[in-house]
Amino acid sequence: MVLDNGFAGQLSEPQSHYLVHVMKCSASDEILCFNGRDGEFLCRIDKVSKKSVEITVLEQIRQMEHVPDIWLMFAPVKKNQTDFIIQKATELGAARIVPVITTYTIAETTKTERFRAQAIEAAEQCRRLEVPEISEAVKLDKLVALWDKNRKLYFMDETGGGQNISTAFAQSGKPAAILTGPEGGFSPEELEMLRSKEFARGVSMGKRILRAETAAAAALACWQALSGDWKL
Amino acid sequence: MVLDNGFAGQLSEPQSHYLVHVMKCSASDEILCFNGRDGEFLCRIDKVSKKSVEITVLEQIRQMEHVPDIWLMFAPVKKNQTDFIIQKATELGAARIVPVITTYTIAETTKTERFRAQAIEAAEQCRRLEVPEISEAVKLDKLVALWDKNRKLYFMDETGGGQNISTAFAQSGKPAAILTGPEGGFSPEELEMLRSKEFARGVSMGKRILRAETAAAAALACWQALSGDWKL
Repeated sequence: MVLDNGFAGQLSEPQSHYLVHVMKCSASDEILCFNGRDGEFLCRIDKVSKKSVEITVLEQIRQMEHVPDIWLMFAPVKKNQTDFIIQKATELGAARIVPVITTYTIAETTKTERFRAQAIEAAEQCRRLEVPEISEAVKLDKLVALWDKNRKLYFMDETGGGQNISTAFAQSGKPAAILTGPEGGFSPEELEMLRSKEFARGVSMGKRILRAETAAAAALACWQALSGDWKL
Repeated sequence: MVLDNGFAGQLSEPQSHYLVHVMKCSASDEILCFNGRDGEFLCRIDKVSKKSVEITVLEQIRQMEHVPDIWLMFAPVKKNQTDFIIQKATELGAARIVPVITTYTIAETTKTERFRAQAIEAAEQCRRLEVPEISEAVKLDKLVALWDKNRKLYFMDETGGGQNISTAFAQSGKPAAILTGPEGGFSPEELEMLRSKEFARGVSMGKRILRAETAAAAALACWQALSGDWKL
């Protein structure tokens, strides 16, 4: 589990609740913990009381491993699909996840805290040693206006106008970011704006229309395969 | 929609039901139809009665396009995840989908008819012009014993023993098949058996543990990018 405040001593109330009531742990159980900085540790539960759990570190299991510097920026879709995107982006090793509001985005409020809880669960499940950073939702034009030009921005272009994905991502390098649109894709004005930027590149994933969540997971998988840590 | 029996005249009762009660179509509406052989056609609904719908072909919209000869073979997992695998494999252009029973597969009955219904829906959604073939579930040892040696079999090896996926799939060629395991992966005996086959190759997707459905979608996306029809 994630322990932001170090590994020894008394855990916070939500963490204690999670261990005892969700994970059904009890005293003397051993658990794997990480804090996003120091690696993975085997810890033992020493004491369980009504509202708190105390643990001790037994040994370090893994050195820290960071994911590559790749961001997933996506237009929020329906609740289940958005949850899915957060989960898959975490498993597939996105360093940062950014909800982006585009013209065709169905304006639902985005719940950063909820996204973060899902990212934590997914990180624990896939034994990733850090939780991706979840940014507050940002409008596309603002995102592009404030863009750090050292980071390549790959936008998934459903109109077929982009470079094929294997060529684009084989030459990617880091840092990089992937941007996927909502159902209906980007508006013509958005495509024109993105194409006019030197740091941005349109990428094509074939002729079949991919759902928003499929496009996000597929693009991230291809990037990890071609320029990320699946290549090692 | 899929029309297995041609485009003109009276539709079957389930097809009529789908158009009228699910899609809320009525007389004079125009719909896009495909039959898996001849391409895509614009049709008009001429007549709606209680149990049947009559349509006429107006014009051909697209020539037939086949997906590449890639199969997805996967160990069935929980219901929602398996549904997800069928949907994503269809979107991501698998020609054939094969449920495979492995040692660690949680033995649930697989419902071929249900899978087919989901593949049809996904094909319509992504405007794919044919529905993937859904095979009956088969045991892994039988699948391997009856294997056509001209088809390369890529099995996703979670132990990290495999070739990295970009190298493996860049050299893939067709025909090919991707095999993904259940939660917990393949058994040591299964890995040994697969590694002993000349037509089989172990493939690695990095160190993070991917859920079964993530692995299936990610592997198929990488194959389409590197050897499939995203490369065109």
